[in-house]
Amino acid sequence: MILKNPFSTRSDRWQPIIKAFTKALGAQNVIRRKDELLTYECDGLAAYRQRPALVVLPRTTEEVAQAVQICREYQLPWVARGAGTGLSGGALPVEEGVLIVTAKMKRILNVDLANQRVVVQPGVINNWVTQAVSGAGFYYAPDPSSQIICSIGGNIAENSGGVHCLKYGVTTNHVLGLKIVTPQGEIIDVGGCVPEMPGYDLTGLFVGSEGTLGIATEITLRILKTPEAICVLLADFESIEAAGGAVADIISAGIIPAGMEMMDNLSINAVEDVVATGCYPRDAGAILLVELDGLEVEVSGNKQRVAQLCRQNGARQITSASDGETRLKLWKGRKAAFAAAGHMSPNYFVQDGVIPRTKLVQVLGEIEALSRESGFAIANVFHAGDGNLHPLILYDQAVPGAFEQVEKVGEEILRLCVEAGGSLSGEHGIGADKNCSMPRMFNEVDLETMQYVRAVFNPDGLANPGKLFPTPRTCGEAANQRPQGEFKGASLF
Amino acid sequence: MILKNPFSTRSDRWQPIIKAFTKALGAQNVIRRKDELLTYECDGLAAYRQRPALVVLPRTTEEVAQAVQICREYQLPWVARGAGTGLSGGALPVEEGVLIVTAKMKRILNVDLANQRVVVQPGVINNWVTQAVSGAGFYYAPDPSSQIICSIGGNIAENSGGVHCLKYGVTTNHVLGLKIVTPQGEIIDVGGCVPEMPGYDLTGLFVGSEGTLGIATEITLRILKTPEAICVLLADFESIEAAGGAVADIISAGIIPAGMEMMDNLSINAVEDVVATGCYPRDAGAILLVELDGLEVEVSGNKQRVAQLCRQNGARQITSASDGETRLKLWKGRKAAFAAAGHMSPNYFVQDGVIPRTKLVQVLGEIEALSRESGFAIANVFHAGDGNLHPLILYDQAVPGAFEQVEKVGEEILRLCVEAGGSLSGEHGIGADKNCSMPRMFNEVDLETMQYVRAVFNPDGLANPGKLFPTPRTCGEAANQRPQGEFKGASLF
Repeated sequence: MILKNPFSTRSDRWQPIIKAFTKALGAQNVIRRKDELLTYECDGLAAYRQRPALVVLPRTTEEVAQAVQICREYQLPWVARGAGTGLSGGALPVEEGVLIVTAKMKRILNVDLANQRVVVQPGVINNWVTQAVSGAGFYYAPDPSSQIICSIGGNIAENSGGVHCLKYGVTTNHVLGLKIVTPQGEIIDVGGCVPEMPGYDLTGLFVGSEGTLGIATEITLRILKTPEAICVLLADFESIEAAGGAVADIISAGIIPAGMEMMDNLSINAVEDVVATGCYPRDAGAILLVELDGLEVEVSGNKQRVAQLCRQNGARQITSASDGETRLKLWKGRKAAFAAAGHMSPNYFVQDGVIPRTKLVQVLGEIEALSRESGFAIANVFHAGDGNLHPLILYDQAVPGAFEQVEKVGEEILRLCVEAGGSLSGEHGIGADKNCSMPRMFNEVDLETMQYVRAVFNPDGLANPGKLFPTPRTCGEAANQRPQGEFKGASLF
Repeated sequence: MILKNPFSTRSDRWQPIIKAFTKALGAQNVIRRKDELLTYECDGLAAYRQRPALVVLPRTTEEVAQAVQICREYQLPWVARGAGTGLSGGALPVEEGVLIVTAKMKRILNVDLANQRVVVQPGVINNWVTQAVSGAGFYYAPDPSSQIICSIGGNIAENSGGVHCLKYGVTTNHVLGLKIVTPQGEIIDVGGCVPEMPGYDLTGLFVGSEGTLGIATEITLRILKTPEAICVLLADFESIEAAGGAVADIISAGIIPAGMEMMDNLSINAVEDVVATGCYPRDAGAILLVELDGLEVEVSGNKQRVAQLCRQNGARQITSASDGETRLKLWKGRKAAFAAAGHMSPNYFVQDGVIPRTKLVQVLGEIEALSRESGFAIANVFHAGDGNLHPLILYDQAVPGAFEQVEKVGEEILRLCVEAGGSLSGEHGIGADKNCSMPRMFNEVDLETMQYVRAVFNPDGLANPGKLFPTPRTCGEAANQRPQGEFKGASLF
């Protein structure tokens, strides 16, 4: 005899729900076995785990709408999940909730090369978009490090960036229109096929809303022409200060590299230990990777100028590569940096904060001091061109209390970023990880305004509850009192 | 004895209101004399006129908030106005309403060259931003034709474009953050100093909201480095088809000109009649102006390629200019095109619609047919690179019923744009002019969603009522029934 646990999907409460999902999506698209649910307990922020009650896998816009309507009917909290590679716990399930996974929505629906746009389902992998159009000389610009496994739907939710967002912008700059299933179960179209659309920019509002406003089920992306030439320069410096000086001078010269990445000494040695590129000098204080793209003449002109500016800032060696193979070699260490951090230490925690470019050297010094005080080594690998830091805090989770301490160090880093005039997140999102830090950037009225906007789409609060915004349950009573109060902004008009 | 007209501000109803405004803003900033109000009866869409009851001129964020609070207290509809150059009637006053004019908010509050941003008040003239930073080698990219007289606040409201938005994007791409006075009289901050901000993109939502969500009182703009080199090419073609072929080929080659403008034969002759540039051949079917900017090497390389692509498409003559003076000479006719239309005919109506670039030749042919059928000459001057058409419909308003017929032709042009997969407006906004056409682009649920978002900020509907969205009063009952109904989306959360 099976004991009926009231919190189990075997309980009486869940029987009609499972029946409804099975009817709408087919039994093979409703997952309820414990061992199968295990996969879905966390996203890329594996330190936070929660088993969902059910996982459902719709295949069409209509099936997504049906799934959302069932959740609404039974007042079940739900979370949308793409490929589950996010780093802020945005797809962390909710206890006793449903996880709506878009992994079976992997079709590229339309390719319109003449108008430079592609329409995809949310489960399409980021890199597939480029693969679908590269033969014709086009590509999709946003390139998170996880681009061969992350999905466009997740990129939309988190407004993902990548090494090329310095020149080309983050996801929101490349989305023309969306078909959305709102948490009310309605299907709406926002944006369109051309960039200039009248009315409120609901496309921009939705991108980066972290699953709290609905699920995008059809996404119209802008694609770009593949640049004629690409060149990568690798320069090594004795100090972060010197490399930072080069970054400032390159930008001041009016050059906008496709990407400009910095790695500190700890990161350099970590990647050389693991992937042995042979290109990154172990005694360097910092290396700078500068990728230039555009027309042949433009790239070769900029290459000379970047090299000169690096030298003026004390660069010791400058290597450059224009052919694909050598470029990959120079990038190899940077691409392996996160994996290498995993070799340096049993665990690492990657933070994501933004600072004004002019504060780079100052904030990196403060992070170094924080590392000394806390006793945790911190490796720095980051998008230097746009001031997007990714400090990797190294720790061992077997040590009791270590993770809690690391979380505090991570929060301190965010405090430094915000105090320097920057931001809590450059590209990973807020999710479950940083929602308690939101009041550092926004005052009560600002947050309240966002909550009111959320309530337009998500009035029952069933879509991704507890994410993005601070809640009393997770952040303490003080964090989020007003949004529980009178709904001032939304009386009838 | 003065008779008390109940609709006059001399009536008893208005006495406490005037007193409140005078107390908050000072008597010199409250305008109520009929002859002084005349200036404010219309914006650049002079065909629509309405005298406001009162005009108030706040000087600070706090004064704007007080003015809005007074409107709220007395439930007075109000309209914000910048420099009044808008072309869609967005700043058209409301009967018995207040006009809040930002003309006295003309301070540049902060210039941060290192981080490439400038903070301004809304009354600052577009061109002043560039003037304030050009000495240091920077500029503000969005450049509406009215840039020497239009204000940044108005640019924000209408999400203004300009000839350079092909490469650099419209206003929304250059706004980092805003201080906003909401229609509730609250002061909120959205966005920030860095482009990457977590939470909902309320900055993007506000830009282009046409005064329906509040008044921006402090605006953080992104500035760009002045390009090292600029070159303008003028090519003339026997037909629009040939010029359109060149546009398609230039874009397909991966070249993104700073601007790419086309003028048809009628426009060419109009400007030659008026400003006699001597550069635009009167027998050409169309001319193309292509501006290239960037590094010296890049511009000179692209110049060769653009010239070659124009020649391949049958260009007869190609002139180019790199120095400032000759460039201005080539641009002179284009810049004078709207003024020249005024010389061709007693009146003209400028339409603003967007089509996918690939439909350029088709839609221009349809517009030509429409011109023949309706009997109104239509001159075409437009941003060819991004498919943003500006047909100028020539008419004489002294002819009874002519304006009404022209309005219908304008609506037909919009229909053609939308049917071709384009948009109702590229850069002028919807305002009072096109709100009845919104259902051509958006279905009921889409428009309803926008209304719910509006209600978050503007629950009493006092901020710019009757603009942007269709209303039963102006567009008939069918246009906008649902948003009057149950407020489904915004119950408490």
